[in-house]
Amino acid sequence: MPDLKMIHAAVLRLLALGATVAAVVVMVTSHETATVLNMKFTAKYNNTEAFMYFVVANAVASGYSLIVLLLPCKSLCWRIILILDVVMVVLLASSMSAALAIAQVGKKGNSHAGWLPICGQVPRFCDHVGGAIISGIAGSSLYLVLLLHSIYNVLGSAIFSLKP
Amino acid sequence: MPDLKMIHAAVLRLLALGATVAAVVVMVTSHETATVLNMKFTAKYNNTEAFMYFVVANAVASGYSLIVLLLPCKSLCWRIILILDVVMVVLLASSMSAALAIAQVGKKGNSHAGWLPICGQVPRFCDHVGGAIISGIAGSSLYLVLLLHSIYNVLGSAIFSLKP
Repeated sequence: MPDLKMIHAAVLRLLALGATVAAVVVMVTSHETATVLNMKFTAKYNNTEAFMYFVVANAVASGYSLIVLLLPCKSLCWRIILILDVVMVVLLASSMSAALAIAQVGKKGNSHAGWLPICGQVPRFCDHVGGAIISGIAGSSLYLVLLLHSIYNVLGSAIFSLKP
Repeated sequence: MPDLKMIHAAVLRLLALGATVAAVVVMVTSHETATVLNMKFTAKYNNTEAFMYFVVANAVASGYSLIVLLLPCKSLCWRIILILDVVMVVLLASSMSAALAIAQVGKKGNSHAGWLPICGQVPRFCDHVGGAIISGIAGSSLYLVLLLHSIYNVLGSAIFSLKP
C-alpha cells in the first residue's frame, strides 16, 4: 500500500518539522542579562559557534521538510529525497551533539580546563538552550526514523523478517 | 558487476577503519602536563566527556568495520549492514562534532562565558586532539560515502542519471 507508506512518511516529516522549528525558535529567543561583580553581561545564542550551527542546521532542515511536504513528488524525486534525508540526519545529529557538548560545559563547567559553569548566573538562558536541544534531539531522532522507514520501504519488509 | 561493487565497499570500509583506529589512538595518547602560576595540571582526553564519547564512537565503528570486513556476508546480512551503516554515520558525525565544539573552545576560548583558551599552555595536547579530529572527519566522511554508495547500489544508477 504505497499511499499508507506515504502518509506515514508525511506524518513523520510533519512532526520533524515541528521539532526543528521549535528548536530554532527556542534557541534564537534565548538571551539573558546578568550582573556579576558589577560587570553586566548578556548571554546570547550567537556568542557560541556551536549554537549558531545548531540554529542554521535546524533552519535548513525545517525549510527542506516544508519543501518536501508542499511540493508534489513524482517519478525519481523520492530517490533524491532519500539521499537528502541522509544528509539531513547527519546535519541534525552533528549540530545537536555540538550544541549539547557546549551546553554541558555551560551547566557543569570543566574544572580541568578552568572553565566555570555559567548556568548559576543565567538560568533562564540555560533553560532555553536545554529546551532547544531537547527539540533538536526529537527532530534528529524523527529524521533518523524517517530515513530507516524509507530504506525499509526500498528494501522491502525482508530486512526485519530475517528471511532471505 | 556485484563483485566490483563489493570491492569498492570493502576498500572504503578499510580506509574508514584506518581513519577511525587512527582517531582513537591519537586521541587516547593525547596528554600533557603544564605548570601555570606554580600549579601543575595535566590535560588528558578523559577529562572531557565529549572526547571520551569521540573515542568510544570511533572504537565502536572500528570494531564494526573489522567484523564486517572479516566475516563473510550471505543472503540478508548486507541489508542489516546497510541499517548499521546508517547508525555508524550518525554516531561518527555526532561524536566528531561534539569533540570539535569543545576543541574550538580549547583553542579560541569563549570570552562571553569567561572560558579561556588552554592551547597556549598545552600545545602538544591540542595538536593531538586536532589530529584525532581530522582522522574523525575522514572516518565519518568515508562512512557517509560508503552509505551513499550502498544506497546507490540498492536503488540502481537511476538516482544520479535523473531519468525515470
